This record gives sequence, C-alpha cells and structure tokens, in this order.
Amino acid sequence: MIKAKVYITLKKGVLDPQGKTIKQALEHLEYKGIEDIRLGKYIEITLNGKSKSEAEREIKDMCEKLLANTVIEDYRFEIEG
Amino acid sequence: MIKAKVYITLKKGVLDPQGKTIKQALEHLEYKGIEDIRLGKYIEITLNGKSKSEAEREIKDMCEKLLANTVIEDYRFEIEG
Repeated sequence: MIKAKVYITLKKGVLDPQGKTIKQALEHLEYKGIEDIRLGKYIEITLNGKSKSEAEREIKDMCEKLLANTVIEDYRFEIEG
Repeated sequence: MIKAKVYITLKKGVLDPQGKTIKQALEHLEYKGIEDIRLGKYIEITLNGKSKSEAEREIKDMCEKLLANTVIEDYRFEIEG
C-alpha cells in the first residue's frame, strides 16, 4: 500500500481571492502582521498493488491530467510506503 | 519573516464527497488500484515581525478559531523561520 501526499498551489502572480478573504477575516479577529495568505489543496491518495516507481509515475500523470490545472497551478507530491 | 504551512484534513470517519468524486473521475480515466482519496486544504501564511514561538502560538490559535472546523477537521502546521 502506497500513500501519496499531493500539494497543489496557485502559481506566483495568480490572484487568490480565497486567500485574501481568509487574510481579511483574520485581520478582523485582530491578528496583526499577516503579510500574505495563499490557499491551496492537499490531497492524500492511497494506492494498492503498485511499486513506488509506478506510483510516482502515475501520481505525476494524475496531477497533469486531472488534479492540478497546470495553467494556473503548481503541484508537488511525496510518496510514502 | 516567518512562513507557516498549515494542513487541514477531514477527521477519520468523516465522509469526503469531494475526495470520492475525484476518485471516480480518476477511475473513469482508467487509473486502477485507487484505494482512497481524501481532499484537504493547504494554507501558506507569511507573517511579519513575529518570533518563531509567537508565530507558533498565533497560528495554532488561528487554526482553532478560523482556519479549521475542529468538529470535523484536524490540522497540523510547520513553521519555517
């Protein structure tokens, strides 16, 4: 059993309205000194019956094809197990 | 400048319809052997003018108060100085 952790983030320069909203909400709660907040996705994928290298290839493929929108998003992943 | 990475995940046992939808979409693309997919949030927070220990206290507080819904979500974070 292989566990992959995928992190999807907006590319630098892409506006992040959700991050901005969180920042404003925190400032409203009197938190000071927040420079920036960026919201991304964190996906845990459990795979069965794959070797680590197969899983690595497959997860990269999934990211390119479905999980990330590579026009505006970057992805990275870690594979455990 | 301090950078915090916050990971918010659904607690074990909480249904994850978005994760299920992603799983079905990947299966539709002929990926085999997917046991489970869980979707969470990944938040990058940049703070100014705080020590590492202040930042740690503050981020924990932000998670409890606003970022995570602790009834159904777990959170963890890393702080880079």
